[in-house]
Amino acid sequence: MWLRDNCPCARCRDPRSGQKLFQISSLPAGLRIDSAVERDGTVEVLWAPDGHRSVYPASWTAAHRQGGPGRRDPRTEDGKELWTARDLAGRLPEADWTAYLEDPAVRARMLQSVLRLGFMVLRGVPPHEGEALDVAETFGFVRETNYGRLFDVRVVPDPNNLAFTSAAVSPHTDNPYRDPVPTLQLLHCLVNDAEGGDSGLVDGFGAAALLRRTDPEAFEVLTRTPVPFVFRDADTELRAEHPLIGTDPLGRVREVRFNNRSTGTLRLPAGQLEAFYRAYRTFAELLLRPELRLDLRLAPGDCLVLDNTRLLHARTAFARDGARHLQGAYADLDGLASTLAVLRRADSLAPLAALFAGAGSAEYLGEPVSMAQHMLQAGALAEAAGAPPHLVAAALLHDVGHVDGDVVTGRALMSGSDNRHSHTGADALGRWFGPEVTEPVRLHVAAKRYLCAVEPGYHARLSEASKYTLEVQGGVMSPVQAAEFAALPGAADAVAVRRWDDEAKDPDAFTPPFEHFLPLLTGLRRD
Amino acid sequence: MWLRDNCPCARCRDPRSGQKLFQISSLPAGLRIDSAVERDGTVEVLWAPDGHRSVYPASWTAAHRQGGPGRRDPRTEDGKELWTARDLAGRLPEADWTAYLEDPAVRARMLQSVLRLGFMVLRGVPPHEGEALDVAETFGFVRETNYGRLFDVRVVPDPNNLAFTSAAVSPHTDNPYRDPVPTLQLLHCLVNDAEGGDSGLVDGFGAAALLRRTDPEAFEVLTRTPVPFVFRDADTELRAEHPLIGTDPLGRVREVRFNNRSTGTLRLPAGQLEAFYRAYRTFAELLLRPELRLDLRLAPGDCLVLDNTRLLHARTAFARDGARHLQGAYADLDGLASTLAVLRRADSLAPLAALFAGAGSAEYLGEPVSMAQHMLQAGALAEAAGAPPHLVAAALLHDVGHVDGDVVTGRALMSGSDNRHSHTGADALGRWFGPEVTEPVRLHVAAKRYLCAVEPGYHARLSEASKYTLEVQGGVMSPVQAAEFAALPGAADAVAVRRWDDEAKDPDAFTPPFEHFLPLLTGLRRD
Repeated sequence: MWLRDNCPCARCRDPRSGQKLFQISSLPAGLRIDSAVERDGTVEVLWAPDGHRSVYPASWTAAHRQGGPGRRDPRTEDGKELWTARDLAGRLPEADWTAYLEDPAVRARMLQSVLRLGFMVLRGVPPHEGEALDVAETFGFVRETNYGRLFDVRVVPDPNNLAFTSAAVSPHTDNPYRDPVPTLQLLHCLVNDAEGGDSGLVDGFGAAALLRRTDPEAFEVLTRTPVPFVFRDADTELRAEHPLIGTDPLGRVREVRFNNRSTGTLRLPAGQLEAFYRAYRTFAELLLRPELRLDLRLAPGDCLVLDNTRLLHARTAFARDGARHLQGAYADLDGLASTLAVLRRADSLAPLAALFAGAGSAEYLGEPVSMAQHMLQAGALAEAAGAPPHLVAAALLHDVGHVDGDVVTGRALMSGSDNRHSHTGADALGRWFGPEVTEPVRLHVAAKRYLCAVEPGYHARLSEASKYTLEVQGGVMSPVQAAEFAALPGAADAVAVRRWDDEAKDPDAFTPPFEHFLPLLTGLRRD
Repeated sequence: MWLRDNCPCARCRDPRSGQKLFQISSLPAGLRIDSAVERDGTVEVLWAPDGHRSVYPASWTAAHRQGGPGRRDPRTEDGKELWTARDLAGRLPEADWTAYLEDPAVRARMLQSVLRLGFMVLRGVPPHEGEALDVAETFGFVRETNYGRLFDVRVVPDPNNLAFTSAAVSPHTDNPYRDPVPTLQLLHCLVNDAEGGDSGLVDGFGAAALLRRTDPEAFEVLTRTPVPFVFRDADTELRAEHPLIGTDPLGRVREVRFNNRSTGTLRLPAGQLEAFYRAYRTFAELLLRPELRLDLRLAPGDCLVLDNTRLLHARTAFARDGARHLQGAYADLDGLASTLAVLRRADSLAPLAALFAGAGSAEYLGEPVSMAQHMLQAGALAEAAGAPPHLVAAALLHDVGHVDGDVVTGRALMSGSDNRHSHTGADALGRWFGPEVTEPVRLHVAAKRYLCAVEPGYHARLSEASKYTLEVQGGVMSPVQAAEFAALPGAADAVAVRRWDDEAKDPDAFTPPFEHFLPLLTGLRRD
């Protein structure tokens, strides 16, 4: 059932969105594998009783072998680097705002720090009102709350929150009374002339792990006792109930909520109250240990971005007459992780970009264009024809088997030894793309042999080089072969790619750069 | 420790924000109760070893007796009314948009439906673009996502999501690949001329409860297996891992995530995979049972608001050439629950408003103003003096003991039988407010006796009626009594209230209506 649920064919998964098209309950009762054959870098499975055929890239089945390591959920402690203050000495995750904006590598490193360490500090963010929103928009979406899209952290008369006084604020997570809690907090310093008013950070996951080691019973109690949190003022009355230490179903720490100011009134049987308060106090004392607390003082232009499901933040008291003004905003971790994943996709497509810039720029033997020109033209022709993204990609990449390093080259092709470049290319592309891209590539040579068989005049229009290679590729299909080919699910796509392939040999045609296709390619990426 | 953690005194809780001022770890080691005395509707506790004194309203200690019922967390199945389609026949939670906007009772009923049943349908919302955002803003904040603040559900070329095609979409929750998932979804119908395109709703909590009854093993497996969900397009790559049925630490159903389109590839030991797929399929089949599905067809002007952590929604396929256009937005349950709680506060203060309108409008015997005028003036004087909200409230409400129904009346006072109206008033106010409001009320008569003792000329300035009642109230304080009074934590607040009380007897003074103070009073509400 698992294997069938992961069938990548176009009837099971929408080639455009990658979304599944069937429901688990619509799979036939008594589902079983009728036959499974390994062939050409794929595993082909025929299913009974419904006769469905699934073709899995061998790279996928290898990567998903049962008994392999489970995925580390990056939102749990599994995906984190736990720290105490000393661990971060000399390696504060910080970057200059301009570098962060201009250099995707800097941006990726900083976003990764938020996911791994729980925070980043951007320096030199112009200390103007509203800039915190600009910072948030570099990685996600602002979460608006009753405090506004943007809120001011400074001393106000009649504050509805102690944050807006000059008092010390002990380590806490923000808005525990909110559900869903904002998962990211931004604090942008505009002015900090006050004596005091320093900031502190504590790794709540680290503290929870320490509690589990030193007092497993207290850890257990805190993970299984829902605690009510409350915030109310004239316009708002927010309540949420969650344990101080939230774990996932596998027991991994996933969330810490800790805020003495807004803890409500627990109702528990008396024996459980005792145990809870003992554990609560033990955890509270642990969170105050100086060695856990990273002290930093925000200067004007500093913007701290922190994981509010994990890190506790604090500030020391400050002199009421000293000016101190931060602006805060909330955002969410899922958007930040998405931004990082998309940044990395561009990175991970670098080998393809290199192909076009390197070996692909060499001549395409027997044709008046280079390999790279040829493929870029094919992609551009598909795009101009309004083809869906997966076919633009297939057209763009149909000949990577020729240029993929030393494996198969144009020279090998012309020497008559290549009748496999379509398979080599499709297999190589399986690293990045699903079958909606790889299969038209795999079949584009067969499509030439097919068109020669069924379309009068097609053979005559082929370039001389293409006529020459037709023979080493198997020659014109027999009527039986042609009928078999036409029945393949990907035949129409392969024929379309083939036509762009045949046209894309014009030395005078416009040839867009590879980068033009990057967003389209990244959108088609699969695991 | 629990009792001390809930001390309501002004050193333990900020009277302005109601937030706790101490940390659990700063309570002394070996904390114990030195003495506890019940007196005047309060329980007074003296703590050892630090000598701290806590005064709890008896109503609070009664309401929080150990062994009483635990709170029903309204976000879990405990706080819901589970349903099948038949249960809602003839009682669809629906209202006219204008009535919803104009009548707070209609608004409260509809918001309550979202919390209890999981949805509401507003009719007659103008079928114009962007109105869905106006609906969201009546109860909370829009959650912006990669789909925008507002998104269009209609057929588009090259959709990144099957929602944007004419295909049938089976029951699902939205955005399971997001963490935090948007907890509310709005769907506002602008056009629906298509054949097909009907909507369906399934109560996921109800289905989960049914699964627990009929196949407890499957339920168990689905609550403990994290399932990866994935969404990717050119600009976005969202992933989240959560069980299909999420429970709180007490095992109560708290969240359902179910979406065949975006379910990713599970990695589990083989034995667990088998069990998971069996349970997944069982649950999927159950969710498709027609008797669970409430069918409704959205017409132009209908706006469906649904709890996306609980309800699954679906739509039937429709003819591609028929026009169908919905606009969607996301928002969150916590904001909606807050809006409802604030709406209800105004309701729950109705008895106070009635006092001012009813008995309080009677004459204040011996004074040239009515009771209501007197108290409203006292509140206005406190406000004009820039007093914090709790003192404005105490001044406004200081004499409710006189007017609270039949208990104590002005007539009883003048007949010399009232020396307790301050206590009666404070106790009555304990139903709504904390000690920062009730204690100055309790002490405002003692403050008169105190000022007579310590401030030359004070007695002479009292009204004749006030001089008369001084005697039945205990007379001028002795020096020892005055010193004891001055040492009480609330003495200064009580003296302040007393001075506004004394001034608030001017028949020509401006008297604001009671409604003027409603926001301030609602902001001070305590449990």
